[in-house]
Amino acid sequence: MSEPRTEISSLGEFGLIDHLTRNNETHHASTILSVGDDAAVLDHFGKQIVVTTDLLIEDVHFDLTYTPLRHLGYKSVVVNLSDIYAMNATPAQITVSLGISNRFSVEALDEFYDGIYTACEKYNVDLVGGDTSSSNKGFIISVVAIGEVAPDKFVKRDGAKKGDLICVSGDLGAAYLGLLLMEREKRIFLESPSVQPDLENQDYIIRRLLKPEARKDIIEFLQQNQITPTSMMDVSDGLSSDLLHICKQSNVGCVIYEDKIPIHEDARLFAFKLELDPTACALSGGEDYELLFTIGQDEYEKLLTNEQISVVGHVTDADQGAHIITRGGNKHPLTAQGWNAFKK
Amino acid sequence: MSEPRTEISSLGEFGLIDHLTRNNETHHASTILSVGDDAAVLDHFGKQIVVTTDLLIEDVHFDLTYTPLRHLGYKSVVVNLSDIYAMNATPAQITVSLGISNRFSVEALDEFYDGIYTACEKYNVDLVGGDTSSSNKGFIISVVAIGEVAPDKFVKRDGAKKGDLICVSGDLGAAYLGLLLMEREKRIFLESPSVQPDLENQDYIIRRLLKPEARKDIIEFLQQNQITPTSMMDVSDGLSSDLLHICKQSNVGCVIYEDKIPIHEDARLFAFKLELDPTACALSGGEDYELLFTIGQDEYEKLLTNEQISVVGHVTDADQGAHIITRGGNKHPLTAQGWNAFKK
Repeated sequence: MSEPRTEISSLGEFGLIDHLTRNNETHHASTILSVGDDAAVLDHFGKQIVVTTDLLIEDVHFDLTYTPLRHLGYKSVVVNLSDIYAMNATPAQITVSLGISNRFSVEALDEFYDGIYTACEKYNVDLVGGDTSSSNKGFIISVVAIGEVAPDKFVKRDGAKKGDLICVSGDLGAAYLGLLLMEREKRIFLESPSVQPDLENQDYIIRRLLKPEARKDIIEFLQQNQITPTSMMDVSDGLSSDLLHICKQSNVGCVIYEDKIPIHEDARLFAFKLELDPTACALSGGEDYELLFTIGQDEYEKLLTNEQISVVGHVTDADQGAHIITRGGNKHPLTAQGWNAFKK
Repeated sequence: MSEPRTEISSLGEFGLIDHLTRNNETHHASTILSVGDDAAVLDHFGKQIVVTTDLLIEDVHFDLTYTPLRHLGYKSVVVNLSDIYAMNATPAQITVSLGISNRFSVEALDEFYDGIYTACEKYNVDLVGGDTSSSNKGFIISVVAIGEVAPDKFVKRDGAKKGDLICVSGDLGAAYLGLLLMEREKRIFLESPSVQPDLENQDYIIRRLLKPEARKDIIEFLQQNQITPTSMMDVSDGLSSDLLHICKQSNVGCVIYEDKIPIHEDARLFAFKLELDPTACALSGGEDYELLFTIGQDEYEKLLTNEQISVVGHVTDADQGAHIITRGGNKHPLTAQGWNAFKK
């Protein structure tokens, strides 16, 4: 039994947009005008607006041989919302623009939009517009996220001060290990298509790669406990690279401790299986979409109730540089490529 | 003497962004935080926000064999601003995201950004963010424009009423004829690279294709003269297709008159040279980025001082359909593909 396939050309550009947005409902009072005109109209009266955008290109940012379209739609939204949360703001609207090759059917796009709408529902954001065109070169996704924040309550990367504690949410490195697993299975499949994939019950690291979440809960926790980070960003390029951004923009140095870096047990075991160092994966892996932030030492007590937040080090003077202290007590410089000394 | 060529890889992703935005200055009080963090922060206190986005893909939306990068940067901004003006709003900020293949040099990107900044200057908008990544498939441009409008003063496509006058700014069809000219020259060049291009002093139609402008002046005129259109959109797909959008969304019909459609003399002559009907080019050509709007009849007198606005017809009941009256007095239905009967 073959699945139904509706050609995109049978709907036309405007018919396709109507089809994909036919069940779109908006929930925010700030969403005045949504899909279907030249632009969307928003009214965030009394708030500041936060805007971010990410461009995702097939075979650069994702591989459709192992990425379900539903998850890709979900992830395309989440990676943008993560940037909004990283400003200490609350996302409210998104736009989605697509370049679509005609190897896609309408049913395939429906799956992609299922993922988009699922993310909108979960994170309470409205889809308010976008642009759809053909692409002769694969699937291209451009998402914009718009959020709001009380005036001057946004958190940048440049406010870390000497003595501040360096915190991360969740755990690090698992998405990268999920990527290594999927790439290995893809290679095996291409060489021997009859071999069944061996995903080794690695649900956790695969989910971290294919269906990441943005840390709405952490921002809510910080707000409820009246903790305002001195600096914050999301971990998209790996802890090393991202922490170095904060150090550079805040004009400070840092020390982090290997034994404090949160790594999920499944990630740790799979790293060992690949003869990789789990810490190197956490430092350089990327795509974790956790929050990295600094707080004043006097806020430390308030963090203790939240097991999802780890204190991994502290901020120093700029002339101290940026370092990691290993479990064995050795001190290595952090580099944007991660902790090279650790890599095998 | 060869031009200097700096490889993008020599700067790295973050170095490239720093380089491209090194002279970026922001001018709007509403631009609180610009390039360099997870997101931009805007404060349009007391105004409504208008958001639009366009995705431009190489060989779908532009052809680098005859499109100077400087003009492409300029046009990428302008097509988005045009959507903001079409809402009766004023653009204030843009973001620019790029997918760049490594056949581009840093110098080539500098040219592209020259065009971006020139448009920002001319239209008084701030560049506040974006995303830069590699692309294995050609040049990809995603621009977001953000504008502001006094509460509930935005103009949609659904407000046209029976008896309203149908107006267009500037002239129509020239960009399409510019495209035909450039495509002809490209074909000739590919067949016989030694033949010099014959652009026939067609500056006007080439400029309309490669370096269009958004009709800021028309929005300012309407505001100064306290004219609020009942519906408005920009002409990007051709007068026929776009007017049919207004008719559908406003649930009305329309009549337009062939002899009222504004067509530039250069466009008319070049159409004849290609044995095309100039009216068909205006109806179906697209990419003119003029404004199409409807106004109540009592506003007619106020328009007379502006030679850049033509009244091309009027709005009827929906059951009258959508028609064009030819110079010869015949009545033809308007179709989304343009006035098919006229096409040769």
